[in-house]
Amino acid sequence: MGTVVVGFVPKPEGEAALNSGIAEAKLRGAKIVVVNSHRGGSEFDDDASVKADKDMERIGKLLEESGVEHELRQLVRGFEPAEDLISIAEAADAELIVIGLRRRSPVGKLILGSNAQRILLDAKCPVLAVKAG
Amino acid sequence: MGTVVVGFVPKPEGEAALNSGIAEAKLRGAKIVVVNSHRGGSEFDDDASVKADKDMERIGKLLEESGVEHELRQLVRGFEPAEDLISIAEAADAELIVIGLRRRSPVGKLILGSNAQRILLDAKCPVLAVKAG
Repeated sequence: MGTVVVGFVPKPEGEAALNSGIAEAKLRGAKIVVVNSHRGGSEFDDDASVKADKDMERIGKLLEESGVEHELRQLVRGFEPAEDLISIAEAADAELIVIGLRRRSPVGKLILGSNAQRILLDAKCPVLAVKAG
Repeated sequence: MGTVVVGFVPKPEGEAALNSGIAEAKLRGAKIVVVNSHRGGSEFDDDASVKADKDMERIGKLLEESGVEHELRQLVRGFEPAEDLISIAEAADAELIVIGLRRRSPVGKLILGSNAQRILLDAKCPVLAVKAG
């Protein structure tokens, strides 16, 4: 059974990546690994931690309802999200990574952030880049 | 029936995109549109034209053998390949664009060229980025 790895962030593009990842896993008969990765540090305070826990609970339910074999990993270990995502994808021998591309508010123009660039370039497997609706 | 649009270039990453695009079209029960786009101009001389024709013939056979409903478009109309690919994807209401990411020889490091960046950012549909094996 193959594995689809999704890079989740609690933003519209992260939700888009999650939904697309579930659809891709179904299509491929693969399992899904959803990775929510923070660098931690001073930005990741108690409020952020509580919000992250709520996100995880909601995503867990969504994955349960999807019927797809799944794993949900929340990482706060000081690495850049790109590093976490790539190492998990390699360890799982993933067939696909799904990421969301973010919009730079307020103009709404899309940008290729450094994490997206690194994942696109450094991942060994194909990378599906999606946008929020 | 959905449509998968592939950006072909006569390089290893273009072959990777083509093979991946055929697999994705099969998986999705979609048809495939393969786009081989040149800006034309002085770089596109008789030799390049003959080579491009040979590539097209070979790709046509490959698509025929794949059993996937397909269309092959060779464009030399002065636009950047990204523009051609995006406009064709939009006209076809594509569900997926597949592109190859190129390696900068001789070091072999991957780069996100300007065409890849534009397609990733400007395409309305998800973009699958693949690498040569």
